[in-house]
Amino acid sequence: MGRLTGGDPSLLRRINSAVVLHALRATDHATLTEITRVTGLSRPTVEGVVEGLVEAGLVVERAAEEGAARRQGRPARHYRFRAEAGHLLGLDVGSHQVTALLADLDGRVLGSLSKDVSESASADDRLERLRSTVAELLRRSGVSRGSLRAVGVGSPGVIEADGAVRLCAALPQWTGLNLGERLSRSFKCAVLVENDANAAAVAEHWKGAAAESDDVVFVLAGLSPGAGSLIGGRLHRGYGGAAGEIGALHLLGREATPEALLSTTDEPLHPLDEQAVAEVFKHAREGDERAREAVDRFIQRLVHDVTALVLALDPELVVVGGWATGIDDVLDPLRHELARYCLRPPRVALSRLGEAAVAMGALRLALDHVEEQLFAVEGTVTARR
Amino acid sequence: MGRLTGGDPSLLRRINSAVVLHALRATDHATLTEITRVTGLSRPTVEGVVEGLVEAGLVVERAAEEGAARRQGRPARHYRFRAEAGHLLGLDVGSHQVTALLADLDGRVLGSLSKDVSESASADDRLERLRSTVAELLRRSGVSRGSLRAVGVGSPGVIEADGAVRLCAALPQWTGLNLGERLSRSFKCAVLVENDANAAAVAEHWKGAAAESDDVVFVLAGLSPGAGSLIGGRLHRGYGGAAGEIGALHLLGREATPEALLSTTDEPLHPLDEQAVAEVFKHAREGDERAREAVDRFIQRLVHDVTALVLALDPELVVVGGWATGIDDVLDPLRHELARYCLRPPRVALSRLGEAAVAMGALRLALDHVEEQLFAVEGTVTARR
Repeated sequence: MGRLTGGDPSLLRRINSAVVLHALRATDHATLTEITRVTGLSRPTVEGVVEGLVEAGLVVERAAEEGAARRQGRPARHYRFRAEAGHLLGLDVGSHQVTALLADLDGRVLGSLSKDVSESASADDRLERLRSTVAELLRRSGVSRGSLRAVGVGSPGVIEADGAVRLCAALPQWTGLNLGERLSRSFKCAVLVENDANAAAVAEHWKGAAAESDDVVFVLAGLSPGAGSLIGGRLHRGYGGAAGEIGALHLLGREATPEALLSTTDEPLHPLDEQAVAEVFKHAREGDERAREAVDRFIQRLVHDVTALVLALDPELVVVGGWATGIDDVLDPLRHELARYCLRPPRVALSRLGEAAVAMGALRLALDHVEEQLFAVEGTVTARR
Repeated sequence: MGRLTGGDPSLLRRINSAVVLHALRATDHATLTEITRVTGLSRPTVEGVVEGLVEAGLVVERAAEEGAARRQGRPARHYRFRAEAGHLLGLDVGSHQVTALLADLDGRVLGSLSKDVSESASADDRLERLRSTVAELLRRSGVSRGSLRAVGVGSPGVIEADGAVRLCAALPQWTGLNLGERLSRSFKCAVLVENDANAAAVAEHWKGAAAESDDVVFVLAGLSPGAGSLIGGRLHRGYGGAAGEIGALHLLGREATPEALLSTTDEPLHPLDEQAVAEVFKHAREGDERAREAVDRFIQRLVHDVTALVLALDPELVVVGGWATGIDDVLDPLRHELARYCLRPPRVALSRLGEAAVAMGALRLALDHVEEQLFAVEGTVTARR
């Protein structure tokens, strides 16, 4: 049974620090008087907290000359949050490419770097490729590894809570890999691993097509399709991290894989050849009959997958992503079919972040982690079962 | 930006009352000394709070002679929670039957009553049938209408947040009915309307097959199939209350309705004739070839629906309910197929509450409402975006 803990002084200090940091982070700079007013804390408390935050390197006094025009007498001191006090990485481990994003503690992106990797690369080679990409990005940006506060990673597959890959069909030797543990060797900070479609859903909610909605299904409509869902603004991972792993759905309705459906010959496409997919979409747009039939078959399959997700979850919005080109052709048929099958059809939108979504989402997850540590204080008093 | 509110005396009183009620509710009876020890509150605070609760009728002094053997001197006073201080109703509005459950403030069922209703009854007739069932149950139980603290209602269809029925194929004139508002005319307390499959999911979590799991999909495998989901122990209604309304799923995979699939003649079953369904299951068990084929077709359809839900949500447990008999035949095929299609197959169990699940879930929702008012105090200090 929970109850009020009363006067724990260290908890109170943490709460007050978080409240002041939160206030400073919401503005460019503020005086002690302004902080006192906004936070409702007493002047001596604010002075003590700000002093502690300056010592910790998280807050700095803004030089008076940067401020407004000097007035007569002693000018008020201005303080600002030091977003440069730490850094974050957002990583995307894909089948053809690895990507790293570097950001400050405000989540502002300072640099990014992608490198190609063979789809048949071993797990060791793929991880090495990722490490060298990170090293080069840090070097170019002049940021030391010790400054990193959290690293987010997006990866295909079912990801366990500890960052291990339970199952992954898309990357060689990926099933069973303890991705979180392996990457932790390269960093002193927390490493957070997330399913790629889940990360993309978070990214679209942060800065993309789903910025206005808290109930979203993001569909990664690739040859190895997956989905990520936000419910009430929070990622829904499922009991075992497998929510949205809809790759097997088509086996139920129609015995056909995307690579067979999209083929314009008698041979199915290569399972990871998304270039070939873009080609088929291009030919279909140019009027090629066989390509158009292939795209139609593929859209029917996508509609089936998305409708199943929508009926199960009833989201406000469906965001479709996965390829840079071609995929926008599916929006109208998808809308039409959802209106036919769903009691309450959701809005449908195209991904705004495109290929950057997974790395951006991984970055946001790293930022969430840091915000929880630095800025969030939750004390809950509950008296229920 | 949230922050500590400091010393709001009325909030503090509410917290202390809730804490004392919570402690008393967890035991048969307790002395002021025991309450003081368990709650960590001061003796004078406990005395004041208990006095207030006695005045409000929620707590009563247990007569000394009921207690342990008298000792020398003045015996300590014992207090207990008065579960009989108020009552709750759980109602189920079905196509063939309406059911009412009556319970005390501990959720202990004091009585129940079901009445048949024609599947073609008008909305007014069905509501009237429900009202007369409630009136008779209250009369038989000797409970006055004024003692009711909350009424929960389970109904087919997509239910809006205000208790209106957005869409319902199963009951005549039900679409567009403001069920919550209509029933509120009969009661002075809160009326909470919930989708029937959602209510059943809540019930199985409370007292049924899902008592040990917080991540559950409950499938109401009737001729008009539906599903309810709990995520982290909380009902997932979806953005518009339509989550789990999987009736249209089969249209995607196979162009067949359950009533056609389960028919052993060339004519489909009547959409609401669940007696005929039980017959088909019975004949199949007795070796009738045509009935067995019909059941197999139906199971394939059910597997498709359930797999779609499982892939979207990744629950720990699937509970199948809907009919009193026959439905247990689907468990093994369902387990087998889920293991084939799901990266992380869930456990599968049969409903333990059977036909009582919807009314029980409605009762639990009424109890949740009352507990929130009486026993729950949540004060959250948050400093985040």
